[in-house]
Amino acid sequence: MLSRTSVFLKTINIHGCRFASQLFYDRYGDPLEVIQLQNESIETNSLKADEVRIGFRASPINPADINQIQGVYPVKPKLPAIGGNEGFGIVEEIGSNVSSLNVGDHVIPAASGFGTWRSEAISNENNFYKIDKRIPMKYAATLQVNPCTAYRMLKDFVELKEGDTVVQNGANSAVGRCVIQIAKILGYETINVVRKRENIDELKSELESIGATKVYTEEEFLKNSRSIKSRLALNCVGGRNSLGIASTLQQNGIMVTYGGMSKQPVQGATGPFIFKDIIFRGFWMSSWYEKSAKNQELKGKRDEMYSEIADWIVLKKLVKPKVVLRQPEEYKEALKDAMETAGIKQLFVFDDNKN
Amino acid sequence: MLSRTSVFLKTINIHGCRFASQLFYDRYGDPLEVIQLQNESIETNSLKADEVRIGFRASPINPADINQIQGVYPVKPKLPAIGGNEGFGIVEEIGSNVSSLNVGDHVIPAASGFGTWRSEAISNENNFYKIDKRIPMKYAATLQVNPCTAYRMLKDFVELKEGDTVVQNGANSAVGRCVIQIAKILGYETINVVRKRENIDELKSELESIGATKVYTEEEFLKNSRSIKSRLALNCVGGRNSLGIASTLQQNGIMVTYGGMSKQPVQGATGPFIFKDIIFRGFWMSSWYEKSAKNQELKGKRDEMYSEIADWIVLKKLVKPKVVLRQPEEYKEALKDAMETAGIKQLFVFDDNKN
Repeated sequence: MLSRTSVFLKTINIHGCRFASQLFYDRYGDPLEVIQLQNESIETNSLKADEVRIGFRASPINPADINQIQGVYPVKPKLPAIGGNEGFGIVEEIGSNVSSLNVGDHVIPAASGFGTWRSEAISNENNFYKIDKRIPMKYAATLQVNPCTAYRMLKDFVELKEGDTVVQNGANSAVGRCVIQIAKILGYETINVVRKRENIDELKSELESIGATKVYTEEEFLKNSRSIKSRLALNCVGGRNSLGIASTLQQNGIMVTYGGMSKQPVQGATGPFIFKDIIFRGFWMSSWYEKSAKNQELKGKRDEMYSEIADWIVLKKLVKPKVVLRQPEEYKEALKDAMETAGIKQLFVFDDNKN
Repeated sequence: MLSRTSVFLKTINIHGCRFASQLFYDRYGDPLEVIQLQNESIETNSLKADEVRIGFRASPINPADINQIQGVYPVKPKLPAIGGNEGFGIVEEIGSNVSSLNVGDHVIPAASGFGTWRSEAISNENNFYKIDKRIPMKYAATLQVNPCTAYRMLKDFVELKEGDTVVQNGANSAVGRCVIQIAKILGYETINVVRKRENIDELKSELESIGATKVYTEEEFLKNSRSIKSRLALNCVGGRNSLGIASTLQQNGIMVTYGGMSKQPVQGATGPFIFKDIIFRGFWMSSWYEKSAKNQELKGKRDEMYSEIADWIVLKKLVKPKVVLRQPEEYKEALKDAMETAGIKQLFVFDDNKN
């Protein structure tokens, strides 16, 4: 292994040895302090029969990645670990016995925890999942978490029919925007709650332009909530806000929690639990992927999901994710911006001209 | 019909006409103001083919009965209505085509809303449900709601195994006491939270004597909650208290809400919804009975429940319900005490020497 001060920012060959760049950490803490850029040697021409070599093209910084590095996420990778859980790569070489992938296939990690902030990886074919080649880079690199979280929450908890209403808070989050667009595609109305802010009119127009039926500030929502009837509420805020959106649930309605931005507990009035049989649940995409790896029915649903989302992307029914492209060497700025800036994702890109 | 000032306190015969006493109301409001004792004439020898005549023996005043009369309960009976939803009677006469009941059978109403504060009723056989004759009066009159609520919450939400822990708040409520006893019978540990009070040591000893594994005040519970691991939490309080008992839930654990004594929303931390897939639900015995009337599987479960509880009663595994016997004419005192006194139930008894 090279010393840590001698760093290449892409995969390169030196004297027949292959070096891949990677962003790694060997202790939990402030990402700005613990993340380091490093080159790791990769043996060439040495794939095991069931292994593939993947050249990563782009990998985002998600909030969960930050929490994981800080050591406050429930899943703690074994250290040292490479950062990142989501990303998109291309199969560059396959072992003699690989059956599910071919050179040139576009792939994403099969599960969380792979470590995607690196230019290259060699690993068992089962650690990657093939996706549609028509999906452009920015979409592909951010496909696995946000659109799929929105998709599953809209599909798996309540059987909705066209014209039904879905209520959500944190509607301008990355998942919230996916909910708006996918609900629109599926024919559901969305009532969207956002925090009051200076550019509120601009934000409302923007969310309406991607398909929101109605966008309310928290205050406006409380004034109007009595007339809203939903069967699915999506909560990433908690506190009084969750109490408000849950109050719109009708008989057998479900509130799904997938985040807690207010850092306040999830709340719901007592009566609807008893008299309307409402349910509070949670959703975690990583856990769903883990289950899908062991369950044929879910595996089928995963294929169907990627295929359906790919079609929507190609048909331009999903707007381009808001990302800033970052070279790996800009990692400190990228991490800082990821922690401080909401609404726009930092995306590491790895040079695809490697050899 | 007799004038309302001429009132008999039991069913009597006058000149071949039959008069039953009943506690009724013709407007919603303070029970002390709107409930009246009245005699209603019942035609003798005039049962329709599918009707039965029931002589009620005893009917309690439950909190829901009070709320119903106040007009603040989600189920609003058509007025004028007879008070009460629970009670126990004996079949005194059956129509020519009645198949499910015989004279002498002990019965309880098949569903909520029948109006049980009366000495006698004539109605379709399907409105009554036969119970084991071995069940003594005080148990039989209070069988339908509290022990069955505890039973169903312990059986229907999580598959528990012997030695598992159930956590509940409001543990000294009537349902709470049933939970303690039935959990003990089924081999589950119970962690019980009660409010701090003057006679706390006495209450702890009492609940431990009927089977509680551990009884904590809210403060003591918070100090100990980190070490408690449950898969079922039963909540009739809400607010911070519900947040506390929910925090003990492990993977796929469920908190069932069946009351809201603090009048604060139900609360749960965000993380366990997402990462442990915990679920918040509600339970309402009346709704379960309604479903069981239309569903053969649930009908079977209802038979099994009554039979199992009857056995426990006969085997003295359930302590006698705490009741005060009241004559119908004492209804004002009984209603007042029901509204002001916790922990002891007012039970109207109707003279069984009617003819």
